[in-house]
Amino acid sequence: MARPLAWLRDRGFAGRVLPVNPRYDELGGLPCYPRLADVPGPVDLVLALVPAERAIATVEEAGAVGAAAVVVFASGFAEVGGDGVAAQAELADAARRAGVRLLGPNCQGLYVARSRLFATFTAAGERVLEGSSGIAYVGQSGAIGGAVLDVAASRGLDLTAWVSTGNQADVDVAEVARVLVADPDVHVLAVYAEALPRPADYVRLAAEARTAGTALVVLRSGRTESGRRAALSHTGAMLPESTAFDLVSREHGVVLVDDVEELLAAATLLRTQTRPRGPRVAAVTSSGGAGILAVDRCADVGLTVPELAEPTREKLARRVPAFGSVANPVDVTAQLFNDGGGAFGEVCALVRDDPAVDAVMVILTMLVGETARALAADLAATVADAPADAPPVVVVWMAGEDATVEGRAVLRAAGVPVFSSIAVATRVLAAAATAAAPPAAPATPVPRIDDAWSLVTALGVPVPRSVRVPVAAEAPDAVAAVGGLAALKAVAPGLEHKTEAGAVRLGVDVAGAADEAAALLARVPGAEAVLVQEMVPPGVELLVSVDGGRDNWPPVVTVGRGGTETELHHDLAHALAPVTADTARALLDSLRCRSLLAGHRGAPPADVGAAVDAIVRISRAAGADGLQELEVNPLVVGTHGAVAVDVLLERA
Amino acid sequence: MARPLAWLRDRGFAGRVLPVNPRYDELGGLPCYPRLADVPGPVDLVLALVPAERAIATVEEAGAVGAAAVVVFASGFAEVGGDGVAAQAELADAARRAGVRLLGPNCQGLYVARSRLFATFTAAGERVLEGSSGIAYVGQSGAIGGAVLDVAASRGLDLTAWVSTGNQADVDVAEVARVLVADPDVHVLAVYAEALPRPADYVRLAAEARTAGTALVVLRSGRTESGRRAALSHTGAMLPESTAFDLVSREHGVVLVDDVEELLAAATLLRTQTRPRGPRVAAVTSSGGAGILAVDRCADVGLTVPELAEPTREKLARRVPAFGSVANPVDVTAQLFNDGGGAFGEVCALVRDDPAVDAVMVILTMLVGETARALAADLAATVADAPADAPPVVVVWMAGEDATVEGRAVLRAAGVPVFSSIAVATRVLAAAATAAAPPAAPATPVPRIDDAWSLVTALGVPVPRSVRVPVAAEAPDAVAAVGGLAALKAVAPGLEHKTEAGAVRLGVDVAGAADEAAALLARVPGAEAVLVQEMVPPGVELLVSVDGGRDNWPPVVTVGRGGTETELHHDLAHALAPVTADTARALLDSLRCRSLLAGHRGAPPADVGAAVDAIVRISRAAGADGLQELEVNPLVVGTHGAVAVDVLLERA
Repeated sequence: MARPLAWLRDRGFAGRVLPVNPRYDELGGLPCYPRLADVPGPVDLVLALVPAERAIATVEEAGAVGAAAVVVFASGFAEVGGDGVAAQAELADAARRAGVRLLGPNCQGLYVARSRLFATFTAAGERVLEGSSGIAYVGQSGAIGGAVLDVAASRGLDLTAWVSTGNQADVDVAEVARVLVADPDVHVLAVYAEALPRPADYVRLAAEARTAGTALVVLRSGRTESGRRAALSHTGAMLPESTAFDLVSREHGVVLVDDVEELLAAATLLRTQTRPRGPRVAAVTSSGGAGILAVDRCADVGLTVPELAEPTREKLARRVPAFGSVANPVDVTAQLFNDGGGAFGEVCALVRDDPAVDAVMVILTMLVGETARALAADLAATVADAPADAPPVVVVWMAGEDATVEGRAVLRAAGVPVFSSIAVATRVLAAAATAAAPPAAPATPVPRIDDAWSLVTALGVPVPRSVRVPVAAEAPDAVAAVGGLAALKAVAPGLEHKTEAGAVRLGVDVAGAADEAAALLARVPGAEAVLVQEMVPPGVELLVSVDGGRDNWPPVVTVGRGGTETELHHDLAHALAPVTADTARALLDSLRCRSLLAGHRGAPPADVGAAVDAIVRISRAAGADGLQELEVNPLVVGTHGAVAVDVLLERA
Repeated sequence: MARPLAWLRDRGFAGRVLPVNPRYDELGGLPCYPRLADVPGPVDLVLALVPAERAIATVEEAGAVGAAAVVVFASGFAEVGGDGVAAQAELADAARRAGVRLLGPNCQGLYVARSRLFATFTAAGERVLEGSSGIAYVGQSGAIGGAVLDVAASRGLDLTAWVSTGNQADVDVAEVARVLVADPDVHVLAVYAEALPRPADYVRLAAEARTAGTALVVLRSGRTESGRRAALSHTGAMLPESTAFDLVSREHGVVLVDDVEELLAAATLLRTQTRPRGPRVAAVTSSGGAGILAVDRCADVGLTVPELAEPTREKLARRVPAFGSVANPVDVTAQLFNDGGGAFGEVCALVRDDPAVDAVMVILTMLVGETARALAADLAATVADAPADAPPVVVVWMAGEDATVEGRAVLRAAGVPVFSSIAVATRVLAAAATAAAPPAAPATPVPRIDDAWSLVTALGVPVPRSVRVPVAAEAPDAVAAVGGLAALKAVAPGLEHKTEAGAVRLGVDVAGAADEAAALLARVPGAEAVLVQEMVPPGVELLVSVDGGRDNWPPVVTVGRGGTETELHHDLAHALAPVTADTARALLDSLRCRSLLAGHRGAPPADVGAAVDAIVRISRAAGADGLQELEVNPLVVGTHGAVAVDVLLERA
């Protein structure tokens, strides 16, 4: 008998279970029906435990008996490529025509604790699951999901709901997740996402989770280029570029992690404790060495280890033996552990309540036996007594798990995640502490303009005075008109890297204008005209670009060090577009080249206000009809003003 | 009774145990002596289980009875600062005068399996330890060491030797490590190092470990600035700059890790398997999702996931079901697991033997029970049958530990490290696969020269024609002598950032020379003269610097993008100095700005050969008497030749 049938029969499923199989009169003691059409009474959900060839017929039959949904477990669809892709499209069509929602194919089904609905094969379901944790899981992968379910259960956390969406021919991760974050039984939702085929749904999910107060932890895979290739071979789904995903997630306080272990650890943390308000970590330990390692690993991931306030240090000094340390990391000494009597919990509470502390990492080393049990109970009580908005406390326990089973269980029951590794604990705290990204500014109507210069001008971004001349003979007058000294640029459709193409001549005066223009028109293939442009005084060269939303994700603005060496600098920052002035300024502040703007090595400071204004205006192109990308590079920021010296526009 | 005494008495210690305490006639059934002087017969080792105040007297008494060494466990020395620092110096003096070697103070002692010498208090010693693993540990921290000892034992790996050096008043980590790597019972040495007070000993250790064929895994703490501060407050030892440490380690194939968990995992891997020859990882799994995650995490740490060779794919296709994947990551499908019969082991061997593969990561998800046991045995046999130089195999098992205890034990017994996290497994493989750094070239004698320009010239590095003029009136002739157009630079003692200081004028001709020189002499405080320098045509600006060995570490050469924005570029590479031409070229190839040298965006290629020659020559200054640092910035690399345009010399 298949696992789902046995589990539904034996584990108190709230509804009726009706086996369907033409070869049996009864299955597992339940009356069995030859066909779906023979089943008495209404059907809500059909579990299609059939091979791929029978999937479409089963979906059609499910529709015929009025089922709301069908779960197709079979593999052999889009994940194998070729014919499988077509078969999956047919399956999805069949479901649509039959009016049933489809989970799968190639999925491992679902489990819902409240109704005891065990509609899955996963071996992790063999455990006794009560669904008490308030943590739910949804992801394409049933294997990843099985690991989350099983490891969580092995740590005393029974998931409240669990869904594997497989190939997502119909229902996808974001849709299931939106239902789960609205469920009052779910306090934390752990998501494993490969493809997110409808980004708008993910944006809604992130916003709804925040509104509902449900913590959302997401492990996104396929984020690297080669990861994307692997994802492609496995799901047939090209993944969208991840910058917008990251920004949307950070806007709404989604915690992004990089590993299944971190997914579960972050979910455990957020189940009972709050996110760190910032990056400042206090370490409490009896090992000087462990404290130094914590400092190193915090620095690796952008966390800081602040000095504690003087009042905290004074209070600590009354608890911590003189040969310990009341600086951060706090070295409580082994003696404090052996003293017992709640002193350790008090020390942790003092550290946690310091205004400079956003999270507390307690590092235990070789503490075993009765001392360890008492200490765990002491710390668990401290966390239980904490105000609701107190900084979170995590424990790293560096001793054999077998010797510390009871203490770990006591801490986990109190909602304290227990790690075996300082590095992993630090990464989870960093993921939870990541600062929110700003929301996009309200969109601004932008007229349909096909010419890059005209668009930039319409947005109100300063551009050099310029005259477009179709023949070389008009160039001298044009140079005179823009001030007597000009940059000449060939205008040719699709011309991108003008400098390499020899399509730019700088510092041309009136006398040389005709010859230089003629040379450009002759040399550059497809040259239609020459742009005669006022010479712009030198300044800091920035790149400012905005896309129109790639792969249906929201638009993103990119600000970075510009000029001809942009790709050598790797000095870029991103935000959802359009941006406000505050966001533009924050983007500039996050660049390494901010010191150029401030006036590098004796140079006068650049006009940052003008740069901010230009970034805000350029970012508004996000709302332009059919925009793929508008790139200004360089935006030359001088001591007074910022000027778009070259622009590029791509439209759909 | 103290742990060491009980353990020495009860666990088969090979020598005699002689308790000393004036208050007892016997201790634990052994005759007890009032003073060390009363002990009959020779004494090899004294364990000083006394408070800090009694430590010096005990050391003196140990010397008087001819003991070779004494272990001082007491804390209250340099780690508490102030008087403790002085007390530790006195203790070290006492040991020196008494002719005994000293382990500690503030240490947790040592354990040597061969002689059953349990001379430690660590709670991890409570376990039954047989010392069969071939892995040894040495580190300052007894707490970190206790964690290594205990976690290893909980995984069936009994350490062969274990030493905590504490405050290292005499014996330090490197000295102990040199003894252990020469011990035939030790196959892998795991080191936790905070301070390395004698870098030359670490250099010898790394070289000797390589010669002895003993794998060396080092967890260095205090590597970040704030980590250094924590280390300082805990050990009173300022840590040396870590670049030379990294280069020395990489030269000799030391595996550097960042976490205690990684220290043990890498030691476990190297105990029975080889290091990966390169960065190419093959993932074998039944979960498409897990495969994608492995690809992502490999990319994070610089590992690659190569295509497998066509013959491998063909052979795999005969084993792997059609709905799996024979590309890398290899998706064997759950069906292959359920089939049993050795097919999984065969697949892993095929992948391992592919010439494109340097390491195999097997990722298991929800495999439990009999299937899991059989699979683990199958894989263990495959690893056991592998040629000695086969690429290593590691396992990530993503299921509750309690449900997979037996399978994990089978794999670990076969020398296969078992991880719970893809991210951690990937980091350990990356640490083990890190490419070797080149050794320094033979040192070259360098004459004692105090002037930077003279030193650079003596090394044979091209410099601009230049004339030093003490008064402005001589400047016009000097400009004429260097070609009629010159850069004028004020010469003043200690002047570093000449541009900001307004001490440089470029493009000065003969007519303007006197006025410009006079202005420089008047403006720059302390100006002694003006350097009139030939104008160098523009080129790629590099920075090349070499130190004379910081804090007694070997000298290091640094090559990077130069000019006035060096610190904005973060584009630097390092090698032990002096360097060969091959190393110099490799350094240039590792920079982002290598594309500038190759001819960026249509520019002509720079004279890389000349740059390489200049780097080699500058690096030879490492051998100059009393050198602190020689920095050439910029080294201007043109289409023909490379010229040192500005130089700075710091000497002791």
